[in-house]
Amino acid sequence: MATQSEHQQRDQGEFVRARNRFAARITADGADGWPVQPQRYRLVVSLACPWASRAVIVRRLLGLEDAISLAVADPIQDERSWRFTLDPGGVDPVLGIAYLAEAYATADPTYTGGISVPAIVDVPTGQLVTNDYPQITLDMITEWRAHHRPGAPDLYPEHLRAEIDAVNAEVFADVNNGVYRAGFATTQHAYSRAYTRLFQRLDALAQRLESQRYLIGETITEADVRLFTTLVRFDAVYHGHFKCNRSKLTEMPVLWAYARDLYQTPGFFDTVSFDHIKRHYYQVHTGINPTGIVPEGPDLSGWDEPHGRERLGGRPFGDGTPPDSP
Amino acid sequence: MATQSEHQQRDQGEFVRARNRFAARITADGADGWPVQPQRYRLVVSLACPWASRAVIVRRLLGLEDAISLAVADPIQDERSWRFTLDPGGVDPVLGIAYLAEAYATADPTYTGGISVPAIVDVPTGQLVTNDYPQITLDMITEWRAHHRPGAPDLYPEHLRAEIDAVNAEVFADVNNGVYRAGFATTQHAYSRAYTRLFQRLDALAQRLESQRYLIGETITEADVRLFTTLVRFDAVYHGHFKCNRSKLTEMPVLWAYARDLYQTPGFFDTVSFDHIKRHYYQVHTGINPTGIVPEGPDLSGWDEPHGRERLGGRPFGDGTPPDSP
Repeated sequence: MATQSEHQQRDQGEFVRARNRFAARITADGADGWPVQPQRYRLVVSLACPWASRAVIVRRLLGLEDAISLAVADPIQDERSWRFTLDPGGVDPVLGIAYLAEAYATADPTYTGGISVPAIVDVPTGQLVTNDYPQITLDMITEWRAHHRPGAPDLYPEHLRAEIDAVNAEVFADVNNGVYRAGFATTQHAYSRAYTRLFQRLDALAQRLESQRYLIGETITEADVRLFTTLVRFDAVYHGHFKCNRSKLTEMPVLWAYARDLYQTPGFFDTVSFDHIKRHYYQVHTGINPTGIVPEGPDLSGWDEPHGRERLGGRPFGDGTPPDSP
Repeated sequence: MATQSEHQQRDQGEFVRARNRFAARITADGADGWPVQPQRYRLVVSLACPWASRAVIVRRLLGLEDAISLAVADPIQDERSWRFTLDPGGVDPVLGIAYLAEAYATADPTYTGGISVPAIVDVPTGQLVTNDYPQITLDMITEWRAHHRPGAPDLYPEHLRAEIDAVNAEVFADVNNGVYRAGFATTQHAYSRAYTRLFQRLDALAQRLESQRYLIGETITEADVRLFTTLVRFDAVYHGHFKCNRSKLTEMPVLWAYARDLYQTPGFFDTVSFDHIKRHYYQVHTGINPTGIVPEGPDLSGWDEPHGRERLGGRPFGDGTPPDSP
């Protein structure tokens, strides 16, 4: 349900992101009825989606691959939304369904809202547990601790949570969701507002990252994961498709080096599919790209170039270790 | 009329540029019935249009401002095409018409084809003389010589014409028209072909321009004017809107310095309206930008940065002189 304020925003041509209907939490104590249990749940993602990619990265950094299995949807939704056409027979081999919507329907046959990823599905019953992307990664970090790999970093340390939450809130409003607010605006005014806030925030983040290697200091945290998933899509889709075109990421030296530093870290680059990213945005959003033609560019070879940020020091995994390369 | 080969191209999703119906020439000897005569003709342009901008630049470089007056159309056509809504009362003060189409109709009441700029109109009769853009600039250079300013350069020297024509042909096919072939393609294959040819040609041109200041050597010629009008629009519109996004012009160092060198030359920068350029492409082509939203970017401040190409020597105006600054 939209609030009155959301309706007013829509009237002004602004994009308003739908809230998540399924917000049960999988916790160590099982308070919501969904206890942490290895090999019970399946994480459904699209590699195109920045919200889903957060969960794919966190799962890798923490070594949760064996505890939580992964289903990758086709980057192109059809009228029934996310589907498993990449799998043999077009059916997810674990859940036995062709469309993610089936897990939504199993959870709530009366549900008529949107179908979104990331989604966590209970394998025994086939029902959706949660599509509440901001909580999914935090719970992987805090509730699944018993199943992390040896040497897993702490991506959400208690003494830094207030700072991480504050940075995340700004990054969400102006960057993660800001690019959508620019791209899906239906009035020049709404677009311009989103564009201005986006680049003001990126400039402020660049200033912050000029003298420190990561957003919250010297180690990778959940805040870096959230910023990364937008930056890695910036030149490939947001710059042109969403008109976020003051400059490319490659033209913002601090952010570009910061993004390359993360990209080249195990757990990041191995989760990125520029092919899925480009095809999804350009083929699905026919309202802003009616031809469905997918640009050949940009030249992505720069992602592997040296980033030079070791000079800032930092301990990427704190007292932990990087995950194995895939 | 399209040829059979043009129909085949269209079937494959390729954009085919319409040919010009009105191809009379204004010449010193008046062979086509249109003799060179100062203050008789009016050049109608849009500052958005690369084909028209050629004529605006050449007119300035040659000092033909007093001999041939200039009408600037609104960058946004309506269903009757180019219109004089920028003028008081929405009427061109010299021709007394609201739409360029009226001059086309005066020339040929049965004409039902497209209305294009640049167009030259005979002021006494109000009829269109020519919309044949490739010939318009060449005739300004060669047929209007008696009315050039003192010190006007020779933009089409006889001993270099074969080379200029050859470069122009390649630049037209792959660059000037190539960006349109990419942007207006309706199939992935047709787009990809245009994209590949465009960047191959730009790379070859960059190689050529690495060691010589201008396309045909040491002085500015008509070939430079033709390449410039595409390059100056590249990052503002072709990169995003037409999906010519392997790299921005700003990321191609030789071409970027070459384009800035020309831009900073009197007769070039004073003809460029990034505002008209951006509004035209993004608001008129609703088939590729349905929202009509005009991007705020890119940052254009780099156009005034030093280009450093004086080190290549060259004599921009040969034995002539630059035009006065506006």
